Amino acid sequence: MPESAVLTGSLVEKLDAARAASRVLANTTADRKNAALHEIADALLRNAARILPANELDLANARENNVPASLQDRLRLDPQRLESLSDAVLQIASLRDPIGETLRGSTLPNGLNITQVRVPFGVVGAIYEARPNVTVDIAALALKSGNAVVLRGGSAAENTNRVLVQLLQAALETVGLPGGAVQTVDEFGRDGARQLMQARGYVDVLIPRGSADLINTVVRESTVPVIETGAGVVHVYLDESADETLSVDIVHNAKVQRPSVCNALETLLVHRAAADRLLPPVAARLREAGVRIHGDEATQAIITDAIPATETDWSTEYMSLDLAVKVVDDLDDAMDHIRRYSTHHTESIITNDLARAERFLAEVDSAVVMVNASTRFTDGGEFGFGAEVGISTQKLHARGPMGLAELTSTKWVVRGTGQVRG
Amino acid sequence: MPESAVLTGSLVEKLDAARAASRVLANTTADRKNAALHEIADALLRNAARILPANELDLANARENNVPASLQDRLRLDPQRLESLSDAVLQIASLRDPIGETLRGSTLPNGLNITQVRVPFGVVGAIYEARPNVTVDIAALALKSGNAVVLRGGSAAENTNRVLVQLLQAALETVGLPGGAVQTVDEFGRDGARQLMQARGYVDVLIPRGSADLINTVVRESTVPVIETGAGVVHVYLDESADETLSVDIVHNAKVQRPSVCNALETLLVHRAAADRLLPPVAARLREAGVRIHGDEATQAIITDAIPATETDWSTEYMSLDLAVKVVDDLDDAMDHIRRYSTHHTESIITNDLARAERFLAEVDSAVVMVNASTRFTDGGEFGFGAEVGISTQKLHARGPMGLAELTSTKWVVRGTGQVRG
Repeated sequence: MPESAVLTGSLVEKLDAARAASRVLANTTADRKNAALHEIADALLRNAARILPANELDLANARENNVPASLQDRLRLDPQRLESLSDAVLQIASLRDPIGETLRGSTLPNGLNITQVRVPFGVVGAIYEARPNVTVDIAALALKSGNAVVLRGGSAAENTNRVLVQLLQAALETVGLPGGAVQTVDEFGRDGARQLMQARGYVDVLIPRGSADLINTVVRESTVPVIETGAGVVHVYLDESADETLSVDIVHNAKVQRPSVCNALETLLVHRAAADRLLPPVAARLREAGVRIHGDEATQAIITDAIPATETDWSTEYMSLDLAVKVVDDLDDAMDHIRRYSTHHTESIITNDLARAERFLAEVDSAVVMVNASTRFTDGGEFGFGAEVGISTQKLHARGPMGLAELTSTKWVVRGTGQVRG
Repeated sequence: MPESAVLTGSLVEKLDAARAASRVLANTTADRKNAALHEIADALLRNAARILPANELDLANARENNVPASLQDRLRLDPQRLESLSDAVLQIASLRDPIGETLRGSTLPNGLNITQVRVPFGVVGAIYEARPNVTVDIAALALKSGNAVVLRGGSAAENTNRVLVQLLQAALETVGLPGGAVQTVDEFGRDGARQLMQARGYVDVLIPRGSADLINTVVRESTVPVIETGAGVVHVYLDESADETLSVDIVHNAKVQRPSVCNALETLLVHRAAADRLLPPVAARLREAGVRIHGDEATQAIITDAIPATETDWSTEYMSLDLAVKVVDDLDDAMDHIRRYSTHHTESIITNDLARAERFLAEVDSAVVMVNASTRFTDGGEFGFGAEVGISTQKLHARGPMGLAELTSTKWVVRGTGQVRG
């Protein structure tokens, strides 16, 4: 039973409605849920003339408030982005329904049959920044996994989100499902987020998605169980045997393809014996893309125009065209550095040495560990999840890109014929 | 990297030692871990002459402090209980090693091979009451699943726990594993628990096990991710078609076999059409065992010596020979009652009606749902887990009895040949 007493009546009404809707969704067939998702995908395209003007209003406010260009970019919807969003919803519809899947099971010596089956969480809360696509992605993933959602989006996207939530609710009702399965607390402003964090008993899990500040606040203040998503001080390590072309291509892709996201490369480590061979071509390719290299002394000796790196560079998530570069003695030295500075998001080794590849994969304790691949692949869409709720950097419940399975819990079903315990 | 600044140096030393040991354990073979478990099982029997006098000292203090008899019972070790404890450790050794198990995997269209593999958490914290068996159970489960543990046991068991922790550490070292994998913060008293809750970055997951008060405190104050274990306001529902013998046996077993534990029955619900048939024989059997029935008006009309139940009875976890009994109109009424008052631990329906059994299993949202079985089976040992860390009543990460798998996280391993994102 809900324990909290700090919630206002009007918010409790929404949470109660979400709970009631979640009970319907939990026992809704995959066919019905997919029909709702197809309706949502369609509604996003059909209602461009409602969505885009609302988004334009948010963008105008953002410009007036001198919001940074990168944030304006995340806030912006256009016909092409609406189409991508609609496609993501269709892809989610095409995935297998996770609900009801049997994960484990056995018949005990006493004849009791026990099975662990996948069930929805119930009510999922999400607190995120001004990215309207997150509203649709999270609602669609939650719906497919049988959950109701309570959303608190960034206030800079409030006009866009209001329209999107209306469309989501209408789409649910069109196929005979409760519109209350998608709730927003945006109208409560900051207090909506604060109350959501205290809604233990009403909200089963709370997912913050956004800046380190936002996430830390939620982790600190929430009594609702939280899945931390997150910050990525992401490393690539060029081993002694790394192929030059692979190294150049992967470092360039990991740093440059989209520098503002959490799976972008932030620190490059290079084996001392390979530094002279690899750093010049890597740096040349990065320089063409406008990357500023912050190097340690050994790096500066090779890349003479590198900015001298300081201690803070090693723990900085630049999210820009900056890259910290350090020469390390060997694999152990590289893994020591990663252990010390990584946020445990994604790390990749570039090598042709099998034993070192296996050691790196086994010993580096991050959500995603890679060999000979760009860190940019740590992504729910790339992993085949359709979309993602976020990328978990904690170890509890979910780790790495979070798709449908990560929005579920389990329960044990026990079938007996009168067994009692002796 | 660890974020907290409130930890004292001597505690940080222990946490650092646990972390270092966890890195060794994470890549230790199953054979080596099982050797350590066999050594622990043996040491418990071999050192009875050290353990039991320490336990006798704790018991003497407990008697002096007028600790309730039920708590004294949980605190007590004797030769037979030591043997059970040793057997549990051997059973844990016999289980399959969860570490390295591949949970999901695929080769993406671009040729990237991705697999999700089971890995240890790293450092597991446990805060629990004065039950020395929990010290051994949790340490053994943690070891088998490749984790270090930091323990804070109830101060009433401090002498027993000190000896047990020494034996655990010595057993690890005997087989060449770091003794630091088992740490206790008991010597810091209450402050040890407080600091453990703030050790975010040092401790990967914190498991409180004990009273509702203890658990609520940890949930409220911990910044380390918590798995809530818990309180059980457990229900049995006797449906219209319930067999009389089954009903009598299961209700008796669920209430009487061990009333002080969380999976014991607390509220019995009876279908109105079956109340006259079932309540008299059920009550007669319970009466023989000394159970006090707290009934609603309809129950009082049938069981005339029932204590009148009040609103608080429905949400009380008696943990004694008391039982709340309510007559309900039908399955929906029973499920409404459960939804309102249950702590979502375990609920069982007694019925011969297939459709009602399936509705109950599908719609009741508890960690364990049963048909025609005693609620006392919700237990890691009974489920074949060897022992249990506790029974999770939350939906995040683990739900129901927690064994080895519940002490693990996962990571994604990505193997490429130079893939970059387009």
